[in-house]
Amino acid sequence: MGTGRTGTRIRPASGEELTALCKEYIPFWGELTPDQQNRLKSSAALEEADRGAVLHNGAEDCVGVLVLLKGRVRAYILSEEGREVTLYRLFPRDFCLFSASCMMKGIEFELSIVTEEETEYLHIPAEAYRSIMQESAAASNYTNEVMGARFSDVMWLLNQVLYKKLDSRLAAFLLEEKDLEEAADGVLSLTHEEIARHLGSAREVITRMLKYFQNEGLVKLTRGSIALLDEAALRRVAGDSLR
Amino acid sequence: MGTGRTGTRIRPASGEELTALCKEYIPFWGELTPDQQNRLKSSAALEEADRGAVLHNGAEDCVGVLVLLKGRVRAYILSEEGREVTLYRLFPRDFCLFSASCMMKGIEFELSIVTEEETEYLHIPAEAYRSIMQESAAASNYTNEVMGARFSDVMWLLNQVLYKKLDSRLAAFLLEEKDLEEAADGVLSLTHEEIARHLGSAREVITRMLKYFQNEGLVKLTRGSIALLDEAALRRVAGDSLR
Repeated sequence: MGTGRTGTRIRPASGEELTALCKEYIPFWGELTPDQQNRLKSSAALEEADRGAVLHNGAEDCVGVLVLLKGRVRAYILSEEGREVTLYRLFPRDFCLFSASCMMKGIEFELSIVTEEETEYLHIPAEAYRSIMQESAAASNYTNEVMGARFSDVMWLLNQVLYKKLDSRLAAFLLEEKDLEEAADGVLSLTHEEIARHLGSAREVITRMLKYFQNEGLVKLTRGSIALLDEAALRRVAGDSLR
Repeated sequence: MGTGRTGTRIRPASGEELTALCKEYIPFWGELTPDQQNRLKSSAALEEADRGAVLHNGAEDCVGVLVLLKGRVRAYILSEEGREVTLYRLFPRDFCLFSASCMMKGIEFELSIVTEEETEYLHIPAEAYRSIMQESAAASNYTNEVMGARFSDVMWLLNQVLYKKLDSRLAAFLLEEKDLEEAADGVLSLTHEEIARHLGSAREVITRMLKYFQNEGLVKLTRGSIALLDEAALRRVAGDSLR
């Protein structure tokens, strides 16, 4: 415990305190046998972490399951160039499962977990948690539910990423059209339907995105035409979608 | 069973045949009680589906768990603009879990599942599967493992979408298709539209990239098919986008 993690400390707690916390924060506690309860409780520790503490770092460690009591943590993945993308955040009563991903068959990805506030949690070592999950359908089903919730978070993000790409593609398309049409005044004669066809999208989606652009002051929409108001901002939105 | 799904049929099977299939294809079968085995078996059906059959369609149905015996299925999500993005494929012995996502707490996303070949599977209705999972830690832990594997697939995809350039994703996709289709001659029957759907891109973008590949001597494009000319070079372009 504590190896490789900085800014985390064990907070001494009596057996009674630990039992009370387990009872309060572990939903399947009541369905465990007295022996399982005892094993879980005696392996668990009450810990606290400073803001910005790294609780789990990719494949480097296998800390265990963390049950949040106070504070907030953030899970993210790192790109090869070191860009961070937030996957989800966890709050009090959430189980942080992927800090114990080593114990779960099938999981082949790495993520990092840091605290965003001073955080307090019950730390259940991976091996203790795994052995109880092997025996208890209640523990295993709850773990399943937690994994399903995190899976849903990541699916939401995937949708965002896939959907968000359209804004940069649309911005790039508008800039390219302006060059192609040599529209020095920045006014393009294009219907939303035409743009949708060009981008392999649907008219309603393009209309929604153009209205968003208009709200942001990037374009002005009139019947049958689109005026580009802020090319520098469009260029930023386009990013590397520009050829 | 079969409601809303087209192109699927029940294949009559005796109790002995079903027992043999359960024993062979359900890893936790031996750890169930005789009563659980009996409930699982008597709720299960042997089914077959034509190529292109829709086995599950977002939130419209809750078919149950499908254990693949033969064939291949594809899971995909629809983006808001109606584009399909392939999440993963399943092969014989794989459990198709998200066709029963209604039975799993925590899961809040929708995906669709279609067959890519003539496919045969054991169909276990959601309610029967759920009730056994509630009782059996072995069933629940295995389900956990399957969910973890699918979670890993989606994390891989997320990494691809976030960090990899389309050229390497396209090269990797072409090489994987060649293996899947067992196209020894290296000729793939794929439209640009289909590829765009798989990669969550637009047809025009894929066409442009394929033409670039053709200019570089990597592929040869003909109407409705793509011949892979230089697999070593495609492999270099694919880099670590290849699974």
